[in-house]
Amino acid sequence: MSLLLLRVADGVACFKVTIGILQRPTSRIRAYSLSPCCRHFSGFSVGHRSSFIQRKMSENGVLFQSRGKVLTVDTMNPAVKKVEYAVRGPIVIRAVELEKELKQGVKKPFTEVIKANIGDAHALGQRPITFLRQVIALCTYPDLLNDNKFPEDAKERARRILQACGGGSIGAYSASQGIECVRQDVAQYIERRDGGIPSDPNNIYLSTGASDAIVTLLKLLVSGEGRSRTGVLIPIPQYPLYSAALSELGAVQVNYYLDEENCWALDVQELRRAVTAARQHCQPKVLCIINPGNPTGQVQSRKCIEDVIRFAAEEKLFLMADEVYQDNIYAQGCQFHSFKKVLYEMGPEYCDTVELASFHSTSKCYMGECGFRGGYMEVINLDPQVKLQLTKLVSVRLCPPVPGQVLLDVIANPPREGEPSYEQFIKEKTAVLNNLAEKARLTEEIFNTVPGIKCNPVQGAMYSFPRIEIPDKAVKEAQAKGQSPDMFYCMKLLEEMGICIVPGSGFGQREGTHHFRMTILPPTEKLRILLNKLKEFHERFTREYS
Amino acid sequence: MSLLLLRVADGVACFKVTIGILQRPTSRIRAYSLSPCCRHFSGFSVGHRSSFIQRKMSENGVLFQSRGKVLTVDTMNPAVKKVEYAVRGPIVIRAVELEKELKQGVKKPFTEVIKANIGDAHALGQRPITFLRQVIALCTYPDLLNDNKFPEDAKERARRILQACGGGSIGAYSASQGIECVRQDVAQYIERRDGGIPSDPNNIYLSTGASDAIVTLLKLLVSGEGRSRTGVLIPIPQYPLYSAALSELGAVQVNYYLDEENCWALDVQELRRAVTAARQHCQPKVLCIINPGNPTGQVQSRKCIEDVIRFAAEEKLFLMADEVYQDNIYAQGCQFHSFKKVLYEMGPEYCDTVELASFHSTSKCYMGECGFRGGYMEVINLDPQVKLQLTKLVSVRLCPPVPGQVLLDVIANPPREGEPSYEQFIKEKTAVLNNLAEKARLTEEIFNTVPGIKCNPVQGAMYSFPRIEIPDKAVKEAQAKGQSPDMFYCMKLLEEMGICIVPGSGFGQREGTHHFRMTILPPTEKLRILLNKLKEFHERFTREYS
Repeated sequence: MSLLLLRVADGVACFKVTIGILQRPTSRIRAYSLSPCCRHFSGFSVGHRSSFIQRKMSENGVLFQSRGKVLTVDTMNPAVKKVEYAVRGPIVIRAVELEKELKQGVKKPFTEVIKANIGDAHALGQRPITFLRQVIALCTYPDLLNDNKFPEDAKERARRILQACGGGSIGAYSASQGIECVRQDVAQYIERRDGGIPSDPNNIYLSTGASDAIVTLLKLLVSGEGRSRTGVLIPIPQYPLYSAALSELGAVQVNYYLDEENCWALDVQELRRAVTAARQHCQPKVLCIINPGNPTGQVQSRKCIEDVIRFAAEEKLFLMADEVYQDNIYAQGCQFHSFKKVLYEMGPEYCDTVELASFHSTSKCYMGECGFRGGYMEVINLDPQVKLQLTKLVSVRLCPPVPGQVLLDVIANPPREGEPSYEQFIKEKTAVLNNLAEKARLTEEIFNTVPGIKCNPVQGAMYSFPRIEIPDKAVKEAQAKGQSPDMFYCMKLLEEMGICIVPGSGFGQREGTHHFRMTILPPTEKLRILLNKLKEFHERFTREYS
Repeated sequence: MSLLLLRVADGVACFKVTIGILQRPTSRIRAYSLSPCCRHFSGFSVGHRSSFIQRKMSENGVLFQSRGKVLTVDTMNPAVKKVEYAVRGPIVIRAVELEKELKQGVKKPFTEVIKANIGDAHALGQRPITFLRQVIALCTYPDLLNDNKFPEDAKERARRILQACGGGSIGAYSASQGIECVRQDVAQYIERRDGGIPSDPNNIYLSTGASDAIVTLLKLLVSGEGRSRTGVLIPIPQYPLYSAALSELGAVQVNYYLDEENCWALDVQELRRAVTAARQHCQPKVLCIINPGNPTGQVQSRKCIEDVIRFAAEEKLFLMADEVYQDNIYAQGCQFHSFKKVLYEMGPEYCDTVELASFHSTSKCYMGECGFRGGYMEVINLDPQVKLQLTKLVSVRLCPPVPGQVLLDVIANPPREGEPSYEQFIKEKTAVLNNLAEKARLTEEIFNTVPGIKCNPVQGAMYSFPRIEIPDKAVKEAQAKGQSPDMFYCMKLLEEMGICIVPGSGFGQREGTHHFRMTILPPTEKLRILLNKLKEFHERFTREYS
């Protein structure tokens, strides 16, 4: 016999659970109808199916905790409990439920759920780049090297990679830092990108997506207790991987606000304010930058990057540059400048001292290969002793997924002019990027026709982050429900229109302002419909609550 | 100008580093000959190439730390510093160096380095299973679905998986817990394995190799401070992922010793001793089991598993069963029993209460597909609220690599009798497993002909962990070098024979005993040569130090 503690809306109730009494527990439990009336139970008996009861209760909104368990929300790691990740939060869970209901034939005011909550290009219909997939298929099933349907340049790359794999198989573990020839190709790719500034393959660490590398580096950086705990500066709005990782590591999150009135630009005065305030209660050691911005889509100017580097040098901050959208630049006059290039161009005073890690991924840009979890980081001026520690740390997880490493290699070493796959590759790549630029423009244009929605230009990346006006009456209704007003807005949008987007509160925003993040990735015509539906919803919502 | 702090063998020296003076720093540094004489430096100037100097120093064994850096070994996360992972430690770094030296034509007493340090089947020549790779190739490059060289059963599986992927592409993110149809297939696989005991796809979490799932679950479990800090029982000898993860999480490692005299069996009395002792200084909450054993190769009897489960129930311990070698059973009379099956067969008193997580991987068994980083865990009796926390936590990393999920699906759903690929699949699978059984026997046989080496039967898994006698004179020489005696032994073996194995101290062993771990994976004839070389080495070593 054990005790079952029920947390219900109006308190905590305690139930006896006797094991092994009910013969047909399922029906008995149905008889008890585990629904909201659950809270009126005085007790029940449970047979083999206690997990069934628990699930039923859980489905009916009854939180519970059985006394007997070792691992409960009360005994678990409190740092993990604090982690939040809105991009896959409650709104997405509800979206998945709605999809299931639609499949079961439940009538809804829409026929499909459009998930615009995440930058998942292929899920939204983008086709994979042929050459990338050819090389991976060749490496996976080397018999295809004898197949004349595969082009010679793809085969040449596959052979080179396979030669670098243990036993010539991508099923072997790679070196923990990543396959050496892939790191060489990545270094050359960076050199080409940065106009010849040297890149050392020993400074490249391949990873399981960029997220993995970011968390690993933060893990090295966080130390101290109380006032000497490491502070990490992150932009607001931010990509919530950062806040989640900092919660998990128990680091101090130090917010600096991007300037919405100025196209979400980064202002060094604001950085200075944030770091000065933070020194009262922690030790700021790290400055995270996302450029192009997620969720905000701004592209930093060269001048801004210089200012940031000078600031990091003055304030002795370790720079982390999240540059996963480096190919996603759409606005006229905007250009991607890597932090590393600017750092080197600022001369030895900076490039010999400022510690920098830059992150890249196979998931974004023109590739959109999220499922492969490929990525890398390049570290500059990292203490060689720390580098040994980093290598040791990554070796515990053995190696990043090798198919993702192969993919990264091909991205770093794409078809060259004159090679058989060159033209098709350029055509496919350009089509994706041009199409994204068109959709970035379309998004800004349509949103800005809606009274109460204000959208900055989507200069880069894959998202719009428009500001929305939410009437006071709606704010109050949200508060009564215990929801943030933008969550209330987004949930209503989902239920009424089948559109899944993420509330701004999941990314952080200035007090009293409301936003949402929506990816620009759906196919142009679908995006247009989506934007017009959002317009319709916003107008109705405003009327309803005015 | 900044200061460079040199830690040299006999203290700490401080150097001025003036930036931008040297014109040809490389040659000047060469003139200073950054070698052991480094410690006699009184100072030098550094130009653009400070990282070059740092590397040179590092290569010459001079540890240093520049004052200016944010991230140094002194400021970094101390928990990460404590992490150790012998399987890819100093001995493997030296092995890689030796390989490079051989390539450069340096004369050595051997012509190749044999890496028997890790269970990396493909790297040691095992061929991938055709059917697995066919399905992955089809999913990667769906044009191949029209290729009549691929069998229909492989195509059917590929189509089913692609249909479950966003946009029909393995480049889309999957659900954080893993693709639903893969989890369904895994659940059915577990049901077949366990004679029909039900498995719920909602209890399956796909992962990036088993390591990822193990660390994630430990992360949830660890809490408290001081005497209420979570204690985790692990076997000694253990697979060092456990000790590494516990260091990183700051959990208390509680050792229980396997019984070497009794084929490395687990004795519940020893568990009781360990847990009782641990309660003095921490709160033991978790019991980790590795079955079949790594590095020890024992296979637990059904009786033993029952005893362990009863013990866990009595002592309120969360059970973690690392069962990644479940197909690797070689010894007569041994059989794999999953913890879950035994738990259910023990009746509701246990199967409704004991919390269990079981781990599996695509890297071991007959597949050996380490590079794909596929794996899963099944959780039993996990508190539903904690499950939500687990799902949230894994969602921060978005999803496990999809190619690894595809691979896992095919393993869970292999060709059935009557399907076109069935015969070849069974033939390939059986050949791998029979060959491993033969090599397990061979290893035990040859080792036990060597005076001073005593090897338990390799009942399962992929390693032998023989005990070696190291003469006192060698122990003293090792101590003088600051090495553990078995590290000294293994390093000498590597330098003289080109054989890379891992010292027992990396896994833990009873005080005063010495062992090493060697994988049985090399091809039979190569393994025979390897074992005889080891025999020769051990005899010479014993003579030399007697």
